[in-house]
Amino acid sequence: MIRFYNGRTLEPCGVTENEIWVDGAAISYVGPGREDMPAFDRQIDLGGDLVMPGFKDAHTHSGMTFLRSAADDLPLHEWLEKQVFPREAKLTPESTGAFVKLAFLEYLANGITACFDMYYHTDEFARIARDWGFRAVLCGSFTVGNDWSELYDFYDRYNHGFGPLVSAQLGFHAEYTANREKLEYLSKVCHELKAPVWCHNSETASEVRDCVARHGMTPTKLFDTLGLYDYGGGGYHCIYLNDEDMDIFARRGLWAVLNACSNGKLASGTFHLHEAMEKGVKLAVGTDGPASNNALDMFREMYLINIMAKLRQEDAAAGDPALILDAAVSGGARAMGLDSCDAIAPGKQADLVRIDMQRPNMRPVHNVVKNLVYSGNPGNVRMTMIAGRVLYEDGQFFVGEDAQSVYRDAERYTRQIVTG
Amino acid sequence: MIRFYNGRTLEPCGVTENEIWVDGAAISYVGPGREDMPAFDRQIDLGGDLVMPGFKDAHTHSGMTFLRSAADDLPLHEWLEKQVFPREAKLTPESTGAFVKLAFLEYLANGITACFDMYYHTDEFARIARDWGFRAVLCGSFTVGNDWSELYDFYDRYNHGFGPLVSAQLGFHAEYTANREKLEYLSKVCHELKAPVWCHNSETASEVRDCVARHGMTPTKLFDTLGLYDYGGGGYHCIYLNDEDMDIFARRGLWAVLNACSNGKLASGTFHLHEAMEKGVKLAVGTDGPASNNALDMFREMYLINIMAKLRQEDAAAGDPALILDAAVSGGARAMGLDSCDAIAPGKQADLVRIDMQRPNMRPVHNVVKNLVYSGNPGNVRMTMIAGRVLYEDGQFFVGEDAQSVYRDAERYTRQIVTG
Repeated sequence: MIRFYNGRTLEPCGVTENEIWVDGAAISYVGPGREDMPAFDRQIDLGGDLVMPGFKDAHTHSGMTFLRSAADDLPLHEWLEKQVFPREAKLTPESTGAFVKLAFLEYLANGITACFDMYYHTDEFARIARDWGFRAVLCGSFTVGNDWSELYDFYDRYNHGFGPLVSAQLGFHAEYTANREKLEYLSKVCHELKAPVWCHNSETASEVRDCVARHGMTPTKLFDTLGLYDYGGGGYHCIYLNDEDMDIFARRGLWAVLNACSNGKLASGTFHLHEAMEKGVKLAVGTDGPASNNALDMFREMYLINIMAKLRQEDAAAGDPALILDAAVSGGARAMGLDSCDAIAPGKQADLVRIDMQRPNMRPVHNVVKNLVYSGNPGNVRMTMIAGRVLYEDGQFFVGEDAQSVYRDAERYTRQIVTG
Repeated sequence: MIRFYNGRTLEPCGVTENEIWVDGAAISYVGPGREDMPAFDRQIDLGGDLVMPGFKDAHTHSGMTFLRSAADDLPLHEWLEKQVFPREAKLTPESTGAFVKLAFLEYLANGITACFDMYYHTDEFARIARDWGFRAVLCGSFTVGNDWSELYDFYDRYNHGFGPLVSAQLGFHAEYTANREKLEYLSKVCHELKAPVWCHNSETASEVRDCVARHGMTPTKLFDTLGLYDYGGGGYHCIYLNDEDMDIFARRGLWAVLNACSNGKLASGTFHLHEAMEKGVKLAVGTDGPASNNALDMFREMYLINIMAKLRQEDAAAGDPALILDAAVSGGARAMGLDSCDAIAPGKQADLVRIDMQRPNMRPVHNVVKNLVYSGNPGNVRMTMIAGRVLYEDGQFFVGEDAQSVYRDAERYTRQIVTG
């Protein structure tokens, strides 16, 4: 058992001074210090530091670390056709695994305790998550080129084959890489499995325009019409949702996963936060892949979401730091089907992050939530715990592999693929 | 003497593998390892890390740390009138000093080796910079309420009274807090001293509109007409410069200091980077004060400048990471009159930052400049050196005062002013 004491705790009710006790993978107690304490394996004096639920990166492509700083500053089409696709064609399970490990190190260093991943070589990904103890939800990235009957196997395999930290959601890449027949088949699958459905949705203006030209309706309306949202789910990006789309999201309880940094770097546009808040659309936050961001940094995402809301509304009062922090830690968990990881409370999974409050950017401690959103950065993360296991602390990783060897492998495969 | 070896060096020509030797306050050698080495006091094996020139925060109000997270998410006018001005009226030299120290700790932790500061209680500010060994340039913040004949004393006092690390530039707050008589007087002063002139310029649309209504021309055109730019200088923010203003900036060699995070958080708007680059306007980067940012983080500034350029142009190819990095380290130095701190080269001041390349967000090392701009964060700063003195290393500050006592004082004065 582990005890966190003498600090602050970010609970659903706000920031408290409660202790946290962790027993195995779960939180066993949250409250004031008590006389009747069990025997602890470790007692952590927080010295005023904050313990918060881990960030949930609700949309990413972990394996794309090899394209960091190797594919930037190009128009979207050229970026995809010249820099991304030809290099992805060279990926093997081994090289993808090396790149995934690099991403996992970055998640841990940045206080991210779970990711919602869509990429290739999923067996390798799931194996590493299981072996390292990283919590991961796989989302199918099916396109017209795939046999969609494999969705059943995908769903079953990653929900049951790789232990308690690995799970899966039904998903496909996007409307523009699917067709009506495939989507109708998916509708059958999701009704049979009673499962939510996920995909990239309304990331660019042209994606929506082309869909309307093809189907006479927006992607959201099309998916809803086909019954894909009958059991929930949501979309990644969602920056070109129109009014009716937002209503569908709100009515169905769908999750809009915000990816502000990627949307900025690819010049795609800005999520309509004001309208989504007015309609009560449920929100989560993701980094997207490191080729289009380029960091896996939820502090920067939270900051940029709020900044873009203010600029878009031309109103310094726009945005909502508390709402966006909640989206980044709790919303993401619920979106990903990880309700047991959405908060610090007894019985919840111990997916926790210790935030160093002894850094100048966290002072004065006038409003911890605003400090996190407006001043925080990954350098404030002192510890990252997943399911009760400390995987990162004070710059060191505890994942059963040496960080330097992860870097070496990632560099070697990157040279082979990018410059080779 | 100190030797940096076995790493990377960001030189004007690009990233090299050269060693750096520091003798006293200056760099004495940059080049390959040599047999004929002097006796070093310390030899630092970089293990592949990068040494770069320190960031120059070319526009800030250091003393405003007390308003961090205490004055957010309000319309600009309400923010100033209700949250900022009444609290600033309570500032004393002692409390301002405590808040300045907190800012200096943050600069050091974030790799910032000099700041261009405009605020109150300047004697206290200059004394702390001198005593701590922090490099600071004071800019006058004169308004209609001041006696502008004190500009002479200000310029002389801070250029000569506080040692080699403290200097001053002529400056006033802004057009809307000055009047024509004061500006004409300043013109006389700057011609006598042959000195550049600085102020907030074109930060908001209404500022420019009101100036045109008052004077029949934009702030830039007005200042130029009055001869304020005859010896150079520049403006902070500059987001509403029109075409003619940009031409004046380019022709006069004036510096536009970009403050993207502040301009976003206050919903002021976006600098016209594309036009400035086309016209060859000289660029520097600043954080603005912690009340309107809220971090003092040049990584985030560099990122946001590029992101906003892409969004504004609706072109993922817009922006220029190398140009913006250069603005953040070298441009700022030259803007502030610190030409001796603008690069890593023999004879230049040893204002250096060690960037930790053993962090996952810095891998793979495909393009160091893009890694810094698109993936870097303050957690990557391992060491900050000013004039040959290590003031920050591996989380510890070496400024002659304990960080915890700085935090305590800042918290105490914050409570008195903000919540008292």
